[in-house]
Amino acid sequence: MSSLLLEQLPELLTIDAKPYAYSFPPKKTALLIIDMQRDFLLPTGFGEIQGGDLKMVQESIAPTKKLLEACRAVGLTIFHTREGHTPDLSDMPSSKVERQPALPGNTQHSFVIGDKATMGRLLTRGEYGHDIIDELAPYPGEVVIDKPGKGSFWNTAIMHKLKSHGITHLLVSGVTTECCFATSIREANDRGFECCGIEEATAGYNAEFKSSSLDMIHWSQGLFGFVANLQPLIDAFEPYTNPLKAATDSLSPPLTPTVWDGDLRIPALQEAYKNGLSPVAVISSLYKTIDAYEKSNTGVWIHLVPKDQALAAAEALAAAYPNKAKLPALFGVPFSIKDSLDIAGLPTTTACPPLSFIATTSSPVYDSCISHGALLIGKTNLDQLATGLTGCRSPYGMPHSVFNPDYISGGSSSGNAVTVGANLCTFSIATDTAGSGRVPSGFNGVVGYKPTRGLLSTVGLTPACLSLDCIAIIAKTVSDARKVWSLCESYDARDRYAKWPMGFERHVNSIGAAASKFKFGIPPPEALSVCSPIYRSKFYEAVAALQAIGGELKPIDWSPFDKAGRLLYDGTFVSERLASLPDDFLEKNRQNLHPVILQLFEAVVARNSTAVQAYRDIQAKALYTREAENVFGYSGEGVDVVIVPTTPTHWKTEQVLADPIKKNSILGEFTHFGNILDLCAVATPAGTYKVSELSGNESDQGELPFSITFLGGTRLDAETLEIARRFQEAGSK
Amino acid sequence: MSSLLLEQLPELLTIDAKPYAYSFPPKKTALLIIDMQRDFLLPTGFGEIQGGDLKMVQESIAPTKKLLEACRAVGLTIFHTREGHTPDLSDMPSSKVERQPALPGNTQHSFVIGDKATMGRLLTRGEYGHDIIDELAPYPGEVVIDKPGKGSFWNTAIMHKLKSHGITHLLVSGVTTECCFATSIREANDRGFECCGIEEATAGYNAEFKSSSLDMIHWSQGLFGFVANLQPLIDAFEPYTNPLKAATDSLSPPLTPTVWDGDLRIPALQEAYKNGLSPVAVISSLYKTIDAYEKSNTGVWIHLVPKDQALAAAEALAAAYPNKAKLPALFGVPFSIKDSLDIAGLPTTTACPPLSFIATTSSPVYDSCISHGALLIGKTNLDQLATGLTGCRSPYGMPHSVFNPDYISGGSSSGNAVTVGANLCTFSIATDTAGSGRVPSGFNGVVGYKPTRGLLSTVGLTPACLSLDCIAIIAKTVSDARKVWSLCESYDARDRYAKWPMGFERHVNSIGAAASKFKFGIPPPEALSVCSPIYRSKFYEAVAALQAIGGELKPIDWSPFDKAGRLLYDGTFVSERLASLPDDFLEKNRQNLHPVILQLFEAVVARNSTAVQAYRDIQAKALYTREAENVFGYSGEGVDVVIVPTTPTHWKTEQVLADPIKKNSILGEFTHFGNILDLCAVATPAGTYKVSELSGNESDQGELPFSITFLGGTRLDAETLEIARRFQEAGSK
Repeated sequence: MSSLLLEQLPELLTIDAKPYAYSFPPKKTALLIIDMQRDFLLPTGFGEIQGGDLKMVQESIAPTKKLLEACRAVGLTIFHTREGHTPDLSDMPSSKVERQPALPGNTQHSFVIGDKATMGRLLTRGEYGHDIIDELAPYPGEVVIDKPGKGSFWNTAIMHKLKSHGITHLLVSGVTTECCFATSIREANDRGFECCGIEEATAGYNAEFKSSSLDMIHWSQGLFGFVANLQPLIDAFEPYTNPLKAATDSLSPPLTPTVWDGDLRIPALQEAYKNGLSPVAVISSLYKTIDAYEKSNTGVWIHLVPKDQALAAAEALAAAYPNKAKLPALFGVPFSIKDSLDIAGLPTTTACPPLSFIATTSSPVYDSCISHGALLIGKTNLDQLATGLTGCRSPYGMPHSVFNPDYISGGSSSGNAVTVGANLCTFSIATDTAGSGRVPSGFNGVVGYKPTRGLLSTVGLTPACLSLDCIAIIAKTVSDARKVWSLCESYDARDRYAKWPMGFERHVNSIGAAASKFKFGIPPPEALSVCSPIYRSKFYEAVAALQAIGGELKPIDWSPFDKAGRLLYDGTFVSERLASLPDDFLEKNRQNLHPVILQLFEAVVARNSTAVQAYRDIQAKALYTREAENVFGYSGEGVDVVIVPTTPTHWKTEQVLADPIKKNSILGEFTHFGNILDLCAVATPAGTYKVSELSGNESDQGELPFSITFLGGTRLDAETLEIARRFQEAGSK
Repeated sequence: MSSLLLEQLPELLTIDAKPYAYSFPPKKTALLIIDMQRDFLLPTGFGEIQGGDLKMVQESIAPTKKLLEACRAVGLTIFHTREGHTPDLSDMPSSKVERQPALPGNTQHSFVIGDKATMGRLLTRGEYGHDIIDELAPYPGEVVIDKPGKGSFWNTAIMHKLKSHGITHLLVSGVTTECCFATSIREANDRGFECCGIEEATAGYNAEFKSSSLDMIHWSQGLFGFVANLQPLIDAFEPYTNPLKAATDSLSPPLTPTVWDGDLRIPALQEAYKNGLSPVAVISSLYKTIDAYEKSNTGVWIHLVPKDQALAAAEALAAAYPNKAKLPALFGVPFSIKDSLDIAGLPTTTACPPLSFIATTSSPVYDSCISHGALLIGKTNLDQLATGLTGCRSPYGMPHSVFNPDYISGGSSSGNAVTVGANLCTFSIATDTAGSGRVPSGFNGVVGYKPTRGLLSTVGLTPACLSLDCIAIIAKTVSDARKVWSLCESYDARDRYAKWPMGFERHVNSIGAAASKFKFGIPPPEALSVCSPIYRSKFYEAVAALQAIGGELKPIDWSPFDKAGRLLYDGTFVSERLASLPDDFLEKNRQNLHPVILQLFEAVVARNSTAVQAYRDIQAKALYTREAENVFGYSGEGVDVVIVPTTPTHWKTEQVLADPIKKNSILGEFTHFGNILDLCAVATPAGTYKVSELSGNESDQGELPFSITFLGGTRLDAETLEIARRFQEAGSK
């Protein structure tokens, strides 16, 4: 999770350590601070009640603060843990309160976890004593993991969160060395994280245990990892530390803003804001671009936030965060959102006026962006009912590709992709049910990430096909898309398809030699024959580029992808699009629907698919999903990712209008199966080509973007994003 | 997982330990032996290559052998772990082979994991060096966990396996103390297992680390658990040790068989076999019972294994296991199987002659029983196509309840439940799609356990309703059912609905005070109004009995259960029963079907359910499933189990014949939703009542069994079985 600060750091930093020098990539390294809670560090807390001598642990506070400030100053990702339990204590094994008081003659353990003490109920979430000490209080955007165990990895989402932040290396500190600190390092090491404990920034209640715990870590040439002193780390960061000291807790003095170059990517904005740029200036500049762009590409917005409102929001945001060292992760980052997602007080149209309503609550993904400081620019156009991949099926107009006015924008998230591609915002919240997030990203030269279904809440989304709907994130870079994902994703019990963030976890295998190696598969030539010649040629170029960055091309079984794609084309799944609508919807709204949507829905009704056929399809879906899992090596050998062209070709608007249904369905050739098989997918820019190479007409001017999609197994989002990121960043060098 | 040996031990044993005496319940305690592999203990292995001094670790072999033999002699559950990787090393983080050799000036680490050394590829599964040393080689039925990490709980099924064996306490030994031993204890402690390390039976490569690692375990009044010496444990077991020393590796001398009392429960058979009883004697005795019973209750078997074949199988089994100390877990245990499951060479009829075929391979669950030494008695009758809950819908006859010839056996697994209830076998492999395993168990006074879907492979099962089908286990006791489950369950990638055994794990909360406490919910009075008066009264008796053993009755939201039940009654799910049959099946086989089944299927066809309706039902199923998860506290507070009467009443055969479809559907009132919501369920005997109390006719003689079902959340099988076991065992005291 890189910031621009991090961008300026070398790829690898190296510090003196035991058993030998520790090298770590700052962009992939997090500081992990274990359990620096009042209950362990302050008088009358749980630690003291347990008989712990507070002097030693308190000595670790100042060095830990120094460590934390140094890491913040270079923009490192920060994780904090807190040990404790839910108020009903249902996540606590009984032994945890019974073993110690059961000591014969016990007088010491008069209070146990959950009992009320001076700082509130001991080790109980929400209580004062459970929280982190003031000196080390988390800043906005830093990750706080509540853990019920001594190890940080039992029954927490830490593995998932570390992976979603792209972390492979950990600098570890905190209390107590012998217990939670050492246990967490052992767990992290098993999972493939390369750990370095920072000696002064950890302490326990027993000096001998501290020294033997640290010795065990680096014994035998690094049994569990490395141990280093604090100063070498501080020294290593020093040359790269932002002049605006992150240590400053007081109000920052006004700085002379550096000239902002208009780069909307998250790290660039973060750096500019830290250096004094005002979000008002960014919004103000942005609306000039938006106004100008509106003239050349109409129909992008369904609801553009009025400029004065946007400026007021920017001003309010700036006022809310006066300390520039403590800005939230998306501070002042402008974004758009598809108009099928609810924002309280605004209409949700889904580009279908008969369905339009004023939302009373906002979708959780929107709320999450706002809470991290992002600024809404507007709600964007889409193919009606999110049904279509062309961008040509909306009553609100027909945006075109940001590359060329003759070529379609793609859909259904047409407006989303255009707003990012045309630099009208940094990222966009879209959806993807059969390719709706990926296809327009491909046609506008941006990244379209469709997470595994259930990792981003679909609450507040007007469904297209409920069991397949996913929120998608569109951004300029894979790194930005990953950042937005990592900030917005959380388990939402209100989403019936939400996936539990724990449990399905692979080890991190992207350090050392593995950091430049991966296995990938591609469709067989016959599956690629649907592509236009230039698309095939660009695709094989991308394959070669992947091989050049360490990708090993392996044969795969293409049949699950093929069968799943056909299931969506030929099967009953289209019927699910009608399932969320009232029975008489078509009848009542015939004249209010987009003619292509009406034609499509009427064809579905005419098919008269039976429940028996639907159940056969549901069973087939389960079978193909299992078969796809085998491709991705869920049990046994497999590939890390499968690469496909995002679409087989790029149509002109006039081509689509002449043959709207067939041209649309061809576009989904390499996206449809992704939702059926519950894969994650990252459509990633892969260069450009001359328009004439596609059209065959030598007089056609300009270029169009090419895109490949990285497909990964269910829940292997972090792994898939990581490979897509390497590809994109290698291509931009 | 109790054996009769264990039954004779006290509920708790206590031994001297640090920080104070360690008490453990032998029935719930496993010996966990960590990584006693050639690669760590023998010359030229991985440990020696890493620079480990073998002398110290080798000193632990003799004490560990003594410990293992003592635990075997009292029948304790045994777990072994092996550290190592799949041959493609895809489960190994790169740091594991890179960190140590990267030591500047390294000359020592010339071989790394996966490299070929004298004992084969280092720490690679399947290699000689990877396996456990001869002295401690696992016996049949002992669990071997292959682990990729130093901790035993990362990316292994050990948590799931410990829970499925009902384990709460661990005696821990093995190598190395400072690394895998200590890490595993820390992990186990976080998960609620009460651990005691056995000092002489663990060793490391560094004496100081061993002592500080052990000290940390028991420091602070037991930070992670207990540490004991070996001798007190040996002494504690001594009075209960079977005279037939488990240590005997040579052929056992023939013993005078104790008189077998005919008790078919697994622990009783195990003990009798260890004492010299021959499986031939059991089979021989059993066939007398079977022949006699056949006269009073016809139609139980579709295929009874001919007596001479069964005797020959028993003889072959006895010959295969001459050492009575090393018998497999189901040695000589007779079982039956539903005739919808394949056994190679036998017809699978599903009680539907037009579908009958000779199977060429056997279902994995059957194979698993056989591999653990169980003896097949026969394939049992069922309601045709496993469609029905009465036992009155088969062309192969109509078995009745073992309690009373006028009352139905229940179905569809009619024969399964009767064979167990009538003491014709120990356990039976049945199925449960809407109650088929639970209802007949309730009507025959036995336990019917329907696991969470996907925990037992459905490969080789002729589907009833593929997405809902579960294998069920019918047995006399919850403990026996759990034993069979723990032996047969494994992830089968060929089953499209198989669930990964890792990931969804709760902590064990059944030790100490928690061992006698649980929270449960029941249906509201209006939901119970469907029950006959005696059923209601027996149900409230059971509720009181649960409260008497520590159950706390909590209000629950009944609506997900109610809505899911109605979904199966009124919805399109019945259409899925047709989805596995060819389109023209009904047309072609009209005259060959049971008339009630024909009537039922014709009604389904006549409903003409559409795909749109099916997708709405599929979406509703997902919603209710999420709502039910909330009842079981997946996020936040909830109950441990929900208790329902297994059925609302018990019909006479003549009542069912007079009104076959309605009477059937009433029986499913409290079972149907279990499959829709993917719950686990344990139908458990809950006393008997007088027939006259049901019929109202004072002249009716005899008794009928009452049954309640414990429903648990998806994957909470171990927790649910544990509570059902306590209920059953309390009732039998």
